[in-house]
Amino acid sequence: MPDMVADKRIVRVDLGSRSYDILIGRDLIAHAGGEMLARLSARKVAIVTDANVAPLYLDALTESLQTDGIETFAMTLAAGEKTKSFDNLTAVTDFILDARIERSDAVIALGGGVIGDLTGFAAAIVRRGVRFIQVPTSLLAQVDSSVGGKTGINARQGKNLVGAFHQPDLVIADTATLDTLSPREFAAGYAEVVKYGLIDQPDFFHWLEKHRADVFSGGIERTEAIARSCQAKAAVVAADERETGARALLNLGHTFGHALERATNYDSARLVHGEGVAIGMVLAHEFSARMNLASPDDAKRVAAHLKAAGLPTSMHDIDGKLPPPDILMDAIGQDKKVKGGKLTFILTRGIGEAFIADDVPPSEVLSFLTEKHPQ
Amino acid sequence: MPDMVADKRIVRVDLGSRSYDILIGRDLIAHAGGEMLARLSARKVAIVTDANVAPLYLDALTESLQTDGIETFAMTLAAGEKTKSFDNLTAVTDFILDARIERSDAVIALGGGVIGDLTGFAAAIVRRGVRFIQVPTSLLAQVDSSVGGKTGINARQGKNLVGAFHQPDLVIADTATLDTLSPREFAAGYAEVVKYGLIDQPDFFHWLEKHRADVFSGGIERTEAIARSCQAKAAVVAADERETGARALLNLGHTFGHALERATNYDSARLVHGEGVAIGMVLAHEFSARMNLASPDDAKRVAAHLKAAGLPTSMHDIDGKLPPPDILMDAIGQDKKVKGGKLTFILTRGIGEAFIADDVPPSEVLSFLTEKHPQ
Ligand SMILES: NC(=O)c1ccc[n+]([C@@H]2O[C@H](COP(=O)([O-])OP(=O)(O)OC[C@H]3O[C@@H](n4cnc5c(N)ncnc54)[C@H](O)[C@@H]3O)[C@@H](O)[C@H]2O)c1
Ligand SMILES: NC(=O)c1ccc[n+]([C@@H]2O[C@H](COP(=O)([O-])OP(=O)(O)OC[C@H]3O[C@@H](n4cnc5c(N)ncnc54)[C@H](O)[C@@H]3O)[C@@H](O)[C@H]2O)c1
Ligand SMILES: [Zn+2]
Ligand SMILES: [Zn+2]
Repeated sequence: MPDMVADKRIVRVDLGSRSYDILIGRDLIAHAGGEMLARLSARKVAIVTDANVAPLYLDALTESLQTDGIETFAMTLAAGEKTKSFDNLTAVTDFILDARIERSDAVIALGGGVIGDLTGFAAAIVRRGVRFIQVPTSLLAQVDSSVGGKTGINARQGKNLVGAFHQPDLVIADTATLDTLSPREFAAGYAEVVKYGLIDQPDFFHWLEKHRADVFSGGIERTEAIARSCQAKAAVVAADERETGARALLNLGHTFGHALERATNYDSARLVHGEGVAIGMVLAHEFSARMNLASPDDAKRVAAHLKAAGLPTSMHDIDGKLPPPDILMDAIGQDKKVKGGKLTFILTRGIGEAFIADDVPPSEVLSFLTEKHPQ
Repeated sequence: MPDMVADKRIVRVDLGSRSYDILIGRDLIAHAGGEMLARLSARKVAIVTDANVAPLYLDALTESLQTDGIETFAMTLAAGEKTKSFDNLTAVTDFILDARIERSDAVIALGGGVIGDLTGFAAAIVRRGVRFIQVPTSLLAQVDSSVGGKTGINARQGKNLVGAFHQPDLVIADTATLDTLSPREFAAGYAEVVKYGLIDQPDFFHWLEKHRADVFSGGIERTEAIARSCQAKAAVVAADERETGARALLNLGHTFGHALERATNYDSARLVHGEGVAIGMVLAHEFSARMNLASPDDAKRVAAHLKAAGLPTSMHDIDGKLPPPDILMDAIGQDKKVKGGKLTFILTRGIGEAFIADDVPPSEVLSFLTEKHPQ
């Protein structure tokens, strides 16, 4: 079958024997079977998806796979962050084993980051690792969670505290699926796109300032923005697969963001991941300015862009009451980027100039949080 | 503190940046703190053990660690194979997170293979991997499960079907702990010792035929047998860390053994792992003889040695009714050493001449099982 996807882009993640392709373009799901067989020989797949995505894309994916002679099994879970639980890990593992998936077959995650993280973790531990394919359907999953091999679930003590490194064998990002994503979820994913600009690509941030509307409405700019984001993440992952060094830069906005997610009990009605990251990125720029590292104007420019994209940019934008600053600090201390008691933060010297600071004094953070706290 | 362990042996497992030492000798638990600090800088440890081992060795281990200024937390689980469950994985993970173990701290497994497999798996997935120390107290754990980084739990569908590769940072095998092991469990572990001889060291098998009684009664021969076993396993693991090739030889006797464990519902009153392996090794030799690969005399010699060690050597030795041969075949098919529908078995050309056969016809196995079946 000739390749009928006009704006298809391929980003390669270089990891030696664990290298893989990320395919990006409109209507790729209809070609999933062929794209998969061109790269690996699995004859059987177990698909995990959620209740929002299943009615929209499960049939199309199944049909494409079956047309290419691949046997399929499917499991649909409830949508939402709470799905990333030990109970569901057990259930998905059970499902994969019942489908008798062997090391040479594959498990497919069809959905957002929640389904990707949970399913990837299950694929990592069944038979100590079976093949894994990501079909991300949220913007956040396409530009972030489906790339890099971090998988996991949440624990009572914090988000993503339990998991594994397990690289996918292939990522198929069908950008047309984003047409059905809610504007709020699209914006949340967009926060991660902006993040790549803020880390070390000021020109990409400027490009986004010009083309934001086109990325939101679809078309070639959307594919371009996703491909550039994947490239940025792939480069960092290739340099530091197991997050011992430079990969930590990807956590820009995330230490504050995770604390806020925790403070709102992972309640997506109040805050979703990308929104936490948006507020967290603004806080990171403001905190950097307060530490005399960056200009306060940069923080304002970042906030303005995120706000124009429909994102929250301060704790005031979160509905309902937040726990007091010292409880937020506790959540930061429980976050996994703690080493020997000191706090590791990603700070910045300006747009596109983020860096790892691993000796941030907790007292400075606490007084900053107290100042910014809405109550 | 001068080294007061007279017969201490050190076996190095060579795995590049993941290399580690196995310490073997009497009364090493009393030196655990110092041995650990000589190799890694953890200041906090979470110890997981079982209800049989805790009253015997937990205080001694805790005291040694605390004397060296290491903070300790401990969790005691029920003893037995059923402990390797998803529920306990959740509980142990929770315990480690509550103890706020960071990547630079450590988790310690104090017990047999059950505690080692479960705890190692939890250490692998908490924060995507924290440091892990094995303090094996059963013979099986000292010569087999604590070496090599395979960790995991059982699933409804079969044994060890869920897990991770996670190498320990240190193994401390205190041979004096084996004095309190039941004779039955000691014999079960001894089956794995014999296995190393049967795979590729006929001289070790002959040495065991002479020194079996000394190994059982303790003393220098016990340390020697354990060190040789660890060396044998370490060599295979170093050559094939993730079990894609030669490491499969370690499964001699295990495909039949696992099927029998499953057939007896992992009921340790009827069969423990090493007993399944003992019967499995005899069956592997007998099946090899039946396939005209080896002399039937070798199978008899192997059976005689295992029987003298107090081990079962045929399905007739298992109490109670076994499922019919076709159900046993099913269990073999569900075992994880299945590739693309064909059966992989470890067969032999004689004592110390095992090899990987990956095209064994299921029909031959079925008729062999039917012949050997007691009912
Ligand atoms: N593994 C990583 O490296 C990594 C990186 C970043 C984030 N994450 C994780 O990703 C998760 C967030 O991902 P997410 O924002 O995709 O969340 P999500 O999976 O919950 O998806 C968001 C919502 O959009 C719905 N949805 C998804 N695709 C849709 C589509 N095409 N049309 C209509 N609705 C659709 C989902 O059902 C859900 O309700 C968090 O758990 C976070 O921890 C992981
Ligand atoms: N990870 C691997 O590579 C690997 C290899 C082989 C076996 N295994 C696993 O190991 C497990 C079997 O290990 P096991 O035989 O040690 O089982 P086990 O942990 O259940 O220990 C056997 C019994 O001996 C008791 N015990 C342990 N040490 C004692 C001591 N010093 N004194 C008195 N009692 C003691 C235990 O409480 C238990 O009742 C199985 O689950 C098997 O799958 C793993
Ligand atoms: Zn993120
Ligand atoms: Zn074994």
